[in-house]
Amino acid sequence: MTLLRSWLDSANSPDTDFPLANLPYGVFSVGEGDLRCGVAIGERILDATGLEAAGILRADPDADVLDVPYWNDFMELGPKAWDRYRKALGALLAEGADETLRDACMTYSVPMAEADLHMPFRVSEYTDFYAGKQHAQNVGEMFRGKENALPPNWLSIPIGYNGRASSVVVSGTDVTRPWGQLKSPDEALPRFAPCARFDMELELGAIVGTPSHGMVSVAQADEMIFGFVLLNDWSARDIQAWEYQPLGPFQAKATATTISPWIVTRAALEPFRTPTPPRDRALLPYLDEPRAMNFDIDLSVTLAPAGGQETTICRTNARELYYSSAQQLCHHTTSGCPMRVGDLLGSGTITGAAKEARGSLLELSWGGAEPITLAGGQRRSFLEDGDRLTLYGAAQGAGYRIGFGACSGTVLPAPADPMA
Amino acid sequence: MTLLRSWLDSANSPDTDFPLANLPYGVFSVGEGDLRCGVAIGERILDATGLEAAGILRADPDADVLDVPYWNDFMELGPKAWDRYRKALGALLAEGADETLRDACMTYSVPMAEADLHMPFRVSEYTDFYAGKQHAQNVGEMFRGKENALPPNWLSIPIGYNGRASSVVVSGTDVTRPWGQLKSPDEALPRFAPCARFDMELELGAIVGTPSHGMVSVAQADEMIFGFVLLNDWSARDIQAWEYQPLGPFQAKATATTISPWIVTRAALEPFRTPTPPRDRALLPYLDEPRAMNFDIDLSVTLAPAGGQETTICRTNARELYYSSAQQLCHHTTSGCPMRVGDLLGSGTITGAAKEARGSLLELSWGGAEPITLAGGQRRSFLEDGDRLTLYGAAQGAGYRIGFGACSGTVLPAPADPMA
Repeated sequence: MTLLRSWLDSANSPDTDFPLANLPYGVFSVGEGDLRCGVAIGERILDATGLEAAGILRADPDADVLDVPYWNDFMELGPKAWDRYRKALGALLAEGADETLRDACMTYSVPMAEADLHMPFRVSEYTDFYAGKQHAQNVGEMFRGKENALPPNWLSIPIGYNGRASSVVVSGTDVTRPWGQLKSPDEALPRFAPCARFDMELELGAIVGTPSHGMVSVAQADEMIFGFVLLNDWSARDIQAWEYQPLGPFQAKATATTISPWIVTRAALEPFRTPTPPRDRALLPYLDEPRAMNFDIDLSVTLAPAGGQETTICRTNARELYYSSAQQLCHHTTSGCPMRVGDLLGSGTITGAAKEARGSLLELSWGGAEPITLAGGQRRSFLEDGDRLTLYGAAQGAGYRIGFGACSGTVLPAPADPMA
Repeated sequence: MTLLRSWLDSANSPDTDFPLANLPYGVFSVGEGDLRCGVAIGERILDATGLEAAGILRADPDADVLDVPYWNDFMELGPKAWDRYRKALGALLAEGADETLRDACMTYSVPMAEADLHMPFRVSEYTDFYAGKQHAQNVGEMFRGKENALPPNWLSIPIGYNGRASSVVVSGTDVTRPWGQLKSPDEALPRFAPCARFDMELELGAIVGTPSHGMVSVAQADEMIFGFVLLNDWSARDIQAWEYQPLGPFQAKATATTISPWIVTRAALEPFRTPTPPRDRALLPYLDEPRAMNFDIDLSVTLAPAGGQETTICRTNARELYYSSAQQLCHHTTSGCPMRVGDLLGSGTITGAAKEARGSLLELSWGGAEPITLAGGQRRSFLEDGDRLTLYGAAQGAGYRIGFGACSGTVLPAPADPMA
């Protein structure tokens, strides 16, 4: 693959998340200005809404789809339109583009440093999977012992549960520590109190861009995925432990789920396909993958206490997922469940074999038994008020990378009175 | 309470579901005509969209809210507007209304028998609770034995899980038997096959009409509820049994959830408030109910095999719910989970103490061990292809009733190839 260069210098740096090969989609504003659809390129954001209105770059010849502050209407146009638009964007930004167009791009763009970023799409429904095997193994081991760690269905089903779309927020949104029902094993009855074991989950989020009715194959599911974001599924472990039997996590997962602000398209990630890991036992044929369905994306998490420096607390990779996003989506439709544009599928926590590859504090501190130490000397079992967590992700090419931008959130203290 | 009479005779029959005291909201069409918002009154449907456009009855002086085929925009106006509109509707339809208005109502209405009914609102998100104690007890007894029937958290938490809004359909929609992963206890590995234990769940659905951010009290939650529907949460018991550990039901509940076509307002049900049952142990104070929060609503279910007659297979009452809809909604917000207009909260299966008061076939046939016999002599443990299930519900007043209309669905056979 020949690496195309942009006439915009900052897009050619090997250190940018947003080279010409990426072109992720987001929503931005500057100052008190309107929210607009934008495309990240180097250190700038191209104003896609403005380019559409000016007739310079249109996704659809007949209808405006970027005059709303979300990319759902664009996704509704379907895969052919996605490809056309991406190609046209690339032509506009590549070396050799004519000077009039280059000037227009400079007119219709802003420095990223001056922009605020917003939710890039409207989340129709949010499903969270549990597709990281080492994570399921670790959590199971802590709760049920080593022998019964992996649930009996885990090697057959991409286990998932429905989450709460209304709680999905964009990077930079503060997250307030929740209250909830808590009961430790030595207490007879629960208390209503602030969560004491507030945690993160490092995940990849897949965004459905094509609707479905009835069951789809893994190959069809793959084609339905528009793009990906990083996803931090904030988790109240103490609330979860008391509430989750028999119907699964509910309020423990409903405080917030933070996503990164740029939708990295499946198209941009194509060169980074990699197979799912070897199977411990054969899957049912409907889950067969006709080609490599995972993506080789380096992931990391940093934690910065209030006023303190960032410490990297986790390094892992999306190729660890036992079930690909396409398999998750296929399984999601087995019952005939209709899928809609804007559905978000969290992968589940992505944990690798190494200790530093654990994607949650629950695992990193082994349920609090082995607190981790931050660069400044502070120790952490779970999150403390003021902690800022940031997820990073990038697929590494030769001399460039396809990055996601930061996915960040700061923990605010629980209110004194939750009903105030 | 004096019973107001309507100038429309069919609204004064003690047998109508839709007297002047009800005035539920739905969406209808006639023939190839547009979908319109409507109000059920006796045997007619008032064309609320038409009355608004003609300026005869407006919910808001400045903006059209009934020019869309759902009542969400109306709900967005808030409780004061809900009250005003209901009073104005009542005045229009009560004996003594002036003749010009009566004529307008006849012009802007159609016989219900000629109309098709559609989804009355857009479901933002769908949550399903588990608030029927006898149901939880019965299911627990079948799966875990009598001693451990009720999960330890059940008497403290209105247990719930997030369902799938995209799968909610209106009464009259056929429901296709799903495929899924099945594994009986004597099988080593699962098969992918059509569900063999397809079931119903008789529930009450509460519709959120006022959004919230942060936690709300039970009293606030009560005020946020716009109205109620009957709800049948179709359930694939064999898929559920294999998939539900540890994260809860997923595909087993995603084929379809059928709701009745009329939103019966909380206002119409006010005279039927009744307290929740005595507590087996004290609830945490945040769940205290400042007044009676359940509703006395008679519920029943009929089953008709293909070409056969209806047999009533269940009779119960919504007052059986251990946790009221207001308590469910309050608990839903404890984590800070934002609630939105159009959120739907299923109560969970409403089962009473008597054998005929069991709200699912799983309980009625005791897991298949005791099949029930239909009027025509056929026996049923679970649903067979062609079976038509219908839920009925009504609050019974003196000489009138507040009815929900039928909530019906017919089971279609599973496709030979689910991916076709």
